Amino acid sequence: MAEDPVEHLIALLARIPGLGRRSARRAALRMLADPSRLMLPLAAALEAAAAAVRPCSVCGNLDAADPCRICADTRRERGLLCVVEGVADLWALERGGAYRGLYHVLGGVLSPLGGVGPEQLAVEGLLARVAAGGVEEVILALPATVEGATTAHYLSDRLAGSGVNVTRLAQGVPIGGALDVLDDGTLAAALRARRPA
Amino acid sequence: MAEDPVEHLIALLARIPGLGRRSARRAALRMLADPSRLMLPLAAALEAAAAAVRPCSVCGNLDAADPCRICADTRRERGLLCVVEGVADLWALERGGAYRGLYHVLGGVLSPLGGVGPEQLAVEGLLARVAAGGVEEVILALPATVEGATTAHYLSDRLAGSGVNVTRLAQGVPIGGALDVLDDGTLAAALRARRPA
Repeated sequence: MAEDPVEHLIALLARIPGLGRRSARRAALRMLADPSRLMLPLAAALEAAAAAVRPCSVCGNLDAADPCRICADTRRERGLLCVVEGVADLWALERGGAYRGLYHVLGGVLSPLGGVGPEQLAVEGLLARVAAGGVEEVILALPATVEGATTAHYLSDRLAGSGVNVTRLAQGVPIGGALDVLDDGTLAAALRARRPA
Repeated sequence: MAEDPVEHLIALLARIPGLGRRSARRAALRMLADPSRLMLPLAAALEAAAAAVRPCSVCGNLDAADPCRICADTRRERGLLCVVEGVADLWALERGGAYRGLYHVLGGVLSPLGGVGPEQLAVEGLLARVAAGGVEEVILALPATVEGATTAHYLSDRLAGSGVNVTRLAQGVPIGGALDVLDDGTLAAALRARRPA
């Protein structure tokens, strides 16, 4: 049974975050009823994205271009650098549409208990971008958790003396909440009301 | 943006039954972080299943073999024919493990309001299988809905005089419930307590 294409497909569909075993069975049945409608386009899209999409070597965003389209966009405010935990948060800010600067994806937040130190995060890259000049303000858009606050304090310390203005998102982000599940209005309001770190 | 591989992938993932737009974004991000772990195997599994899996020309089950592995399995009781609405119900009965006969997938149930008449269902194929001989009992494992009961009555009428014993699943299937969300024990009990239609 392990080599059966239907069972194999269900097993892999069930590994998609958000789909359980039962949903995977239903999805497989619906797709198999008309393979050309969703199965084959999805297979092609998975292969195309896997082949084309890479982390941006400048900011860490996931994109088919490197530098990514945000880094390459000359209409964006290049003096503004928004530091986010992950690409999901970057996408959430882009959906909000309130931010027109550049980004820096940390790849996580500091977590002494989880074994995540500064060397596991894109901290040196951030300091290098600031040292290269042109950045006027670094906005720390980190989650309102203990780890997020710890990371914000750490980055503020490391950026002190670099001459850039370090800010963080305004209160308004719910305590304990993740950025990428916030509604766009709250995210935009917190961005507008940002204050010195 | 429509041609962007990430946006395109998210749009197709969001069309998987059970995944919404937000889940599709999360799934895409998780998969893009390590394409070789799930993306490429899933793409290959989708293509392999789309290429190999067809409805069984005998019973209507979806399988890579035709006749399907159930129809071809000589250890199954060939005098027993279980009529189900769809492949999902066939799979549910197989998971239960209480049934060792053959199947016939109708492809729906009668629905005058929905425009589904006998000619839209695999009724003639069922009658032909019974007329070909060897079938002793036809078990109508149809949903406990008005449409399911209507379909069961219709099939009982069409099979009257064919010499086969026509039965249906015992009461025990919840009224209004779909077969493929039942627990295996209830399904097995209803199968054991089946009675003349």
